[in-house]
Amino acid sequence: MRVLVTGAEGFLGRGLVSRLPEALPGIERLVLTDINMSRPSPVSLQGAERKSGDLGDEGFLDELLETEFDLVFHLASLPGGLAEREQDLGFHANLAAPLALARGVARIKPGARFIFASSIAVYGALSSSPVTSGTATRPMLSYGAHKLMTEIFLADMHRQGTLQAASLRFPGIVARPPTESGHGSAFMSLIFHRIAAGEPYTCPVPADSQCWWMSRQAAVQSLLHVATMQEAPAAPVQLPVLHADVGSVTRAIEQVSARQARIDWGADTTLQALFGAMPPLDAQIAVKLGFRADPDLDALAQAALKGD
Amino acid sequence: MRVLVTGAEGFLGRGLVSRLPEALPGIERLVLTDINMSRPSPVSLQGAERKSGDLGDEGFLDELLETEFDLVFHLASLPGGLAEREQDLGFHANLAAPLALARGVARIKPGARFIFASSIAVYGALSSSPVTSGTATRPMLSYGAHKLMTEIFLADMHRQGTLQAASLRFPGIVARPPTESGHGSAFMSLIFHRIAAGEPYTCPVPADSQCWWMSRQAAVQSLLHVATMQEAPAAPVQLPVLHADVGSVTRAIEQVSARQARIDWGADTTLQALFGAMPPLDAQIAVKLGFRADPDLDALAQAALKGD
Repeated sequence: MRVLVTGAEGFLGRGLVSRLPEALPGIERLVLTDINMSRPSPVSLQGAERKSGDLGDEGFLDELLETEFDLVFHLASLPGGLAEREQDLGFHANLAAPLALARGVARIKPGARFIFASSIAVYGALSSSPVTSGTATRPMLSYGAHKLMTEIFLADMHRQGTLQAASLRFPGIVARPPTESGHGSAFMSLIFHRIAAGEPYTCPVPADSQCWWMSRQAAVQSLLHVATMQEAPAAPVQLPVLHADVGSVTRAIEQVSARQARIDWGADTTLQALFGAMPPLDAQIAVKLGFRADPDLDALAQAALKGD
Repeated sequence: MRVLVTGAEGFLGRGLVSRLPEALPGIERLVLTDINMSRPSPVSLQGAERKSGDLGDEGFLDELLETEFDLVFHLASLPGGLAEREQDLGFHANLAAPLALARGVARIKPGARFIFASSIAVYGALSSSPVTSGTATRPMLSYGAHKLMTEIFLADMHRQGTLQAASLRFPGIVARPPTESGHGSAFMSLIFHRIAAGEPYTCPVPADSQCWWMSRQAAVQSLLHVATMQEAPAAPVQLPVLHADVGSVTRAIEQVSARQARIDWGADTTLQALFGAMPPLDAQIAVKLGFRADPDLDALAQAALKGD
């Protein structure tokens, strides 16, 4: 099996790559790509090829697609805040690149499995009703609009059989390294790092802000699951999450890290509306397909504090 | 005011162009474009520039965008059946071209009004429940997927203020000339022509097939309305239609044409599922915005039989 991972240097990408050799033992060829493959590899990956380049660059894409990939994890994207400020960059990274990659893979290897990291940003403003598979998608940022467009494009390719494409809708994944910026949901990760380090933290949203939580381990497990399912799901999958307020998560972090939280709670209503006013999620379709959330908040905190 | 019409040689385009001089008297410059501007102009249009070319061709687009258009009617598209058979052509005409045009217009003239002819193909299979603004979009053809992606892209540009973009969802428009092929809904137009000509017709679907009907006059009126509204609607507009079975429309055509229909009714279940099993439509949002369906079936038949 020949496998391509885009965004391989990102938070999710590094987590996936470190699990690949053991999770998919039949890999003959593994190509990792990112804009700048500069970090040391997280694990020793015998034979993994590392290619720096821009998927929106036709020459780089052609070079990449000299290999007939059987399985593609397309994780590369520009974070939402940055994509909103830099519209052209966002268009190229979050829309033009995934469409070109998907079309290219289908041309070289029709029927390849193509796994796309989509986002809950496709929903836009949510009401207080539980999110179900029938919830309307009305993205409020270009990032979410581009993710949604890519989902529709891939579902159409899946229907035609040109790709076995699957889109997974991820929430903000914790705990991103404090150095990774551009995400409006940064507070959801910082709170883990600051408490574990015994540092004070000014959380921009109130303690009763309801968020959707997922550790990187659970996110990676979902990617591996969809890679190995008999049939990739045709419709975008809203992954199961833990639905909890930031205060409860704080207590779980205290418990797991044996530190006392020193938090000032803010009242940023914009951030709260975007990330801290999430309704319950009915993800029974995903659960029936075998996708799983973190088991509970303690498990979430434990996983999130593990780091690279 | 500088106005661009793409797909100006198409059925809808010709109808719009013939109304423009009288409906929008402030036009300083009118550019009409299509793949092949070969037909004689439907009306004498003093000063209208006619440019043949492919909007997916960067050079042609650049040439076109030497003009700072204040108002764009993007009507060009490849019909659904053809786009499904010719995937690359469909991608270029129905997705790449509208995105490139919209981005180009926004760059040259930020805030220009951009009117996009979308389609009820965005819905895909409908249940028997009435269609409302909350109805899910699950396109079953690439044509519908591309229309939906373009709607999302334009709504995002509208939100940013880079364009005053509006998408109108059109049903099959009647009565297309019998020579225009590639539309699965051709029977909805042929039935007008054949009855009016006193010819026998084998209609592929049964008489009780429920369709959504709109004359070209009503369609053009909607385009002119959205061009002149104070503010273009931010969300895609499902235009009001007449919901009626083919048998009732047949009787209206007989009435208006003073001919007796000679029809053999078929039982093509695929075509019926696509175009002849339409549920009622609740278009009250569009009606509040001032959009109108044809007044009744007699008016529809009269309008449809007028021709170019």
